[in-house]
Amino acid sequence: MGAMNTLFVKNGWLPDIGLVNVAVTNGLITAIGAVLSPPTDGSPCLDAAGMLLAPGLVNGHTHAAMTLFRGFGDDMPLMEWLRQRIWPAEARLSEEDVYWGTKLACLEMIRSGTCCFQDMYWHYNGVVRAVTEMGLRAGVGAVLIDVAGVEQAVACKKLAEQMFEESHDYPDRLRYTLAPHAIYTVSEETLRWIADFSDRHDLPVHIHLSETRHEVEQCLQQHGMRPAYYLDRLGLLTSRMLLAHGVYLDDGELDLIGQRGATLVTNPVSNLKLAVGAVFPYQKASDRGIPIAIGTDGAASNNSLDLFQEVKTLALIQKHAMNDPTTLPAAAAWEIVTGSRAPLATTQAAVTHRATLAVGQPADFLLLRHQEIEVSPNHQLLSNLVYAASGHIVDSVVVNGRVLMHQRRIDGAEEIRLEACARAALLSRSVQ
Amino acid sequence: MGAMNTLFVKNGWLPDIGLVNVAVTNGLITAIGAVLSPPTDGSPCLDAAGMLLAPGLVNGHTHAAMTLFRGFGDDMPLMEWLRQRIWPAEARLSEEDVYWGTKLACLEMIRSGTCCFQDMYWHYNGVVRAVTEMGLRAGVGAVLIDVAGVEQAVACKKLAEQMFEESHDYPDRLRYTLAPHAIYTVSEETLRWIADFSDRHDLPVHIHLSETRHEVEQCLQQHGMRPAYYLDRLGLLTSRMLLAHGVYLDDGELDLIGQRGATLVTNPVSNLKLAVGAVFPYQKASDRGIPIAIGTDGAASNNSLDLFQEVKTLALIQKHAMNDPTTLPAAAAWEIVTGSRAPLATTQAAVTHRATLAVGQPADFLLLRHQEIEVSPNHQLLSNLVYAASGHIVDSVVVNGRVLMHQRRIDGAEEIRLEACARAALLSRSVQ
Repeated sequence: MGAMNTLFVKNGWLPDIGLVNVAVTNGLITAIGAVLSPPTDGSPCLDAAGMLLAPGLVNGHTHAAMTLFRGFGDDMPLMEWLRQRIWPAEARLSEEDVYWGTKLACLEMIRSGTCCFQDMYWHYNGVVRAVTEMGLRAGVGAVLIDVAGVEQAVACKKLAEQMFEESHDYPDRLRYTLAPHAIYTVSEETLRWIADFSDRHDLPVHIHLSETRHEVEQCLQQHGMRPAYYLDRLGLLTSRMLLAHGVYLDDGELDLIGQRGATLVTNPVSNLKLAVGAVFPYQKASDRGIPIAIGTDGAASNNSLDLFQEVKTLALIQKHAMNDPTTLPAAAAWEIVTGSRAPLATTQAAVTHRATLAVGQPADFLLLRHQEIEVSPNHQLLSNLVYAASGHIVDSVVVNGRVLMHQRRIDGAEEIRLEACARAALLSRSVQ
Repeated sequence: MGAMNTLFVKNGWLPDIGLVNVAVTNGLITAIGAVLSPPTDGSPCLDAAGMLLAPGLVNGHTHAAMTLFRGFGDDMPLMEWLRQRIWPAEARLSEEDVYWGTKLACLEMIRSGTCCFQDMYWHYNGVVRAVTEMGLRAGVGAVLIDVAGVEQAVACKKLAEQMFEESHDYPDRLRYTLAPHAIYTVSEETLRWIADFSDRHDLPVHIHLSETRHEVEQCLQQHGMRPAYYLDRLGLLTSRMLLAHGVYLDDGELDLIGQRGATLVTNPVSNLKLAVGAVFPYQKASDRGIPIAIGTDGAASNNSLDLFQEVKTLALIQKHAMNDPTTLPAAAAWEIVTGSRAPLATTQAAVTHRATLAVGQPADFLLLRHQEIEVSPNHQLLSNLVYAASGHIVDSVVVNGRVLMHQRRIDGAEEIRLEACARAALLSRSVQ
């Protein structure tokens, strides 16, 4: 350990408490209170006057670098979009492209209050470099796919082992995650190997599961069972598992997921935009006590990384699907979007009460402009945050005790944006 | 006419054209072109460098003053919410409350690019004063209800006549609109009177129609026909008619609405949030050539007036409902949110191609920060505007040739916000 890193935040507003100061040391909140004295030695101090202190938001499933493909083919049938647009463009991606695309995504996430995200993408070293520099907390995983056969399967394992070795040098903010793409793109043998590797090294696993009806039908046909049972047979359905989408999970699968302690990550906007044909069974998952997080999916199928807008869509579509306006009330939505109900999505083994700030927690928090016109008046704070706010009310972002944005300014943002835009333009021209 | 009012906008960016200047005289666009010379006589000139020129957005159905009740009871069953929260609070509203609530709504609308809205609320003089001062274009209507019997029916007609007389003094931006609340809150006799009054004075009529299943069932029971047929029997289904919601319209009703030329206004967020149980039949309405607009409904059931977010939700829920990602593509969504497919909602008799700017059109337009991080890169401009943008990309707003916001600054905004918040707090305390 080097010298202590400290941050002091003064005059922030906490609901039910009032004006408080917050002391941060080495990335953790060490004290919260009205009577804490600000530092007098010139160490960093953030003025939060007029601002709400709120926990950082957690994006449980995304492909950050896909900001490069925002709007690159919308309103198309899924397979046409993938075959004509996304796959050809991804085939041309370099690590530098991924690096800049991920940096652009980090800018957007910071600007909308995301402090932690779970990523899955190609050229993982580009992702790791970008997130290391940008200061966010993240689970990072290289996409593993072996549809091409044995040679690709061997390469997959090698990639996973290599990334694991390298991960010892990652900053503490980054957590190495195994990221098999899906049950229909990774062989049974490789999935078993991943289960074993995850078990041996205590590594999280992040996979797309049960996103489309076709995936379920194919699984039934090939394996004689539904996707969650199949994962369980392979030893993958554990409390280290992040399951993205889960739209078509049936009651039996939800029971099993609940028993195994896996985490579900719902992606409401992406599911609606790609018209997957069903709605994530939130109420059933919640009733079973399953950890639940929310994700934006990649910017190519959203086309935003703003979790304030995402969580509103979640609450709306769940009320609609249940035909009940009391479903998923604002307080529950706020718990989900702050990662309070899914420690795995926050990269922590277990964090409780993340929906409010507390001593001992990682210093991942926001200063929110809770007196903006869009969130006035303030009859019910959580209602305003979930139904009325968008990411623009975020004034400042602190992750791991470091100030990533203050007064909506992020150092070097325009240079990153320009470079990412230039690379995106080249990629699109090479495909068209 | 007094002296000519002029505005000159220089260096704005128009898709497919490039950098242009725009000349405005007396509220109309009089010239657009790259070679127009800026004024040299010191008359108003707006610098649009780095900004996209876009038409103003149109909110086809709202209750502006309900910003006072934003978040005042969410996640409740509809009738409980109305009986325990909204109706008791509305019973205590004064004209001054409505005036300040509407001003707060105007601030929010201006900040998110709305240039024109269709309102329906109590204490209409408060609405008229607020909109007159705030500079927006609007259709304004006093809610007409006569559930209390003959005396209330007489008062309704008197109110409608009085408002009509007073409307001759309104600025041209305001259009007086008859606003019977719904078929289940206004008697047949009064609805017939409204049809006749609308016909005699060529007045638009704005009504809630077919928002819930209950409303349809009740109409069938009481009148032996579905709501659109009932309106038609009363002489109300004309091209002067704005029908808000229309969730439960069946094929026959849509045929009839198409024949009569009435306009449908869909309110996707409100419908989802209140869980009305079905989705507006957009594709069927569109196939019949019915004019279609979009509305936010009041802030109490949304809880935002940001049409950028609203139109994204519209596109998403329609793709979901049709099980087809190609439904309601970005270009169609942009036409709807700019009022291009519903002249009546724009308060104009007929405006074509409002989705782009043109000479002869009312000078209602926006300068958009189309190079913000959230809308970068720019593969497809309309995709970015519909799926990635939120209201925060609006830099400047011009309505009727007057600059209402520039660089996101609106004169007097904080005073309005504080007064509206104070009144909202008093109202909520008086109810609880």
